[in-house]
Amino acid sequence: MANKDISRAVIRRLPRYFRYLGELKDVGVEKISSQDLSEMMHVTASQIRQDLNNFGGFGQQGYGYNVSYLYDEIGKILGLDQKHNLILVGAGNLGRALAGYTNFEKRGFYMKGIFDVNPALQGTKIREIPIMPMKDIPEFVKANNIDVAVIAIPKAAAVEVAKILVDCGIKAIWNFSHVDLDIPDNVMVESVHLSESLMRLSYNLNQYEERHGKKG
Amino acid sequence: MANKDISRAVIRRLPRYFRYLGELKDVGVEKISSQDLSEMMHVTASQIRQDLNNFGGFGQQGYGYNVSYLYDEIGKILGLDQKHNLILVGAGNLGRALAGYTNFEKRGFYMKGIFDVNPALQGTKIREIPIMPMKDIPEFVKANNIDVAVIAIPKAAAVEVAKILVDCGIKAIWNFSHVDLDIPDNVMVESVHLSESLMRLSYNLNQYEERHGKKG
Repeated sequence: MANKDISRAVIRRLPRYFRYLGELKDVGVEKISSQDLSEMMHVTASQIRQDLNNFGGFGQQGYGYNVSYLYDEIGKILGLDQKHNLILVGAGNLGRALAGYTNFEKRGFYMKGIFDVNPALQGTKIREIPIMPMKDIPEFVKANNIDVAVIAIPKAAAVEVAKILVDCGIKAIWNFSHVDLDIPDNVMVESVHLSESLMRLSYNLNQYEERHGKKG
Repeated sequence: MANKDISRAVIRRLPRYFRYLGELKDVGVEKISSQDLSEMMHVTASQIRQDLNNFGGFGQQGYGYNVSYLYDEIGKILGLDQKHNLILVGAGNLGRALAGYTNFEKRGFYMKGIFDVNPALQGTKIREIPIMPMKDIPEFVKANNIDVAVIAIPKAAAVEVAKILVDCGIKAIWNFSHVDLDIPDNVMVESVHLSESLMRLSYNLNQYEERHGKKG
């Protein structure tokens, strides 16, 4: 795939394009102009043209973008046509929410096992996926060709579990624990720090109130 | 507060400083050099000095930063010393995970009510917080001085609910629905798009595999 020279900034924006193109596709839209996409996405039309010209899929002047083609191309660049087996570590409230997250399969990620420290949960299932004790992680990862782990456990345990996961050959971690995982460069980490997101909300809300008064 | 001229980039980094300073404070560290903080956070010491010099709280050369003072100052800038009442819309798996999220109170956000379309849930409680029908939102928001809403419902419903929330005077929305909410500028929105985060993970994982082969 000839996408070595696509900038990181464009890559960061791709999932949002993918989401909008998917919505258009779902409602049967076949083509869209950069102008119309610009209005939907609140991004300038020139930014859209620059970004999407990285991937081809744009027809003649006045035709607009072929929605389905662009959707597929961006999906391929994001690797969504690849299949990966994953495990979930942590079956608390957040873990259960993630286990029920049906977008995993749509994006090529198949949840094969769930692990938790709570003995009461072991032997039970979520959506037919078995919950097992933590000590079984290494064997399960090797036996089931697991390359991705989702971590949704308290931060102290997360650091230790991440080490175990790295040791047994996991290639990527989707981290919901409240800590930055210090792991080797050859293991990809994508963190969702809810607490930081809430603080940004707090900052923006309070800045607004300082400028406009509490009753805004 | 004289922080009108702090750049957006610095603001975006503040929650992470706050998190690290909080951890240091929790284990009793009173001061830290920019060099030590740099090693912990994997950010250059010069970046840290530039960022934190925006807020004072740095002692003499060779003393380092006063952890507790800086933690409090950054907390104030983030507005974490302010109190806000919030409601949660959506008591599905993700909503339940968020309702159990104990960081809300620590950051000054008090969950007063939960709303869901499922009649079976109405009248029940999560952590002593009552679950009510959606139609009660406007009255509840006004009666309880609610200024923040957390939305964790499917995207089609989210657009409609956001309009209702704006109409009844909500000032900020923490959005977990899979959609960009198109609401007035005077209402702050902070979105957590899990799907986009998963796609970034997918992209990085597949790029790595393309460069190094499937077996990493």
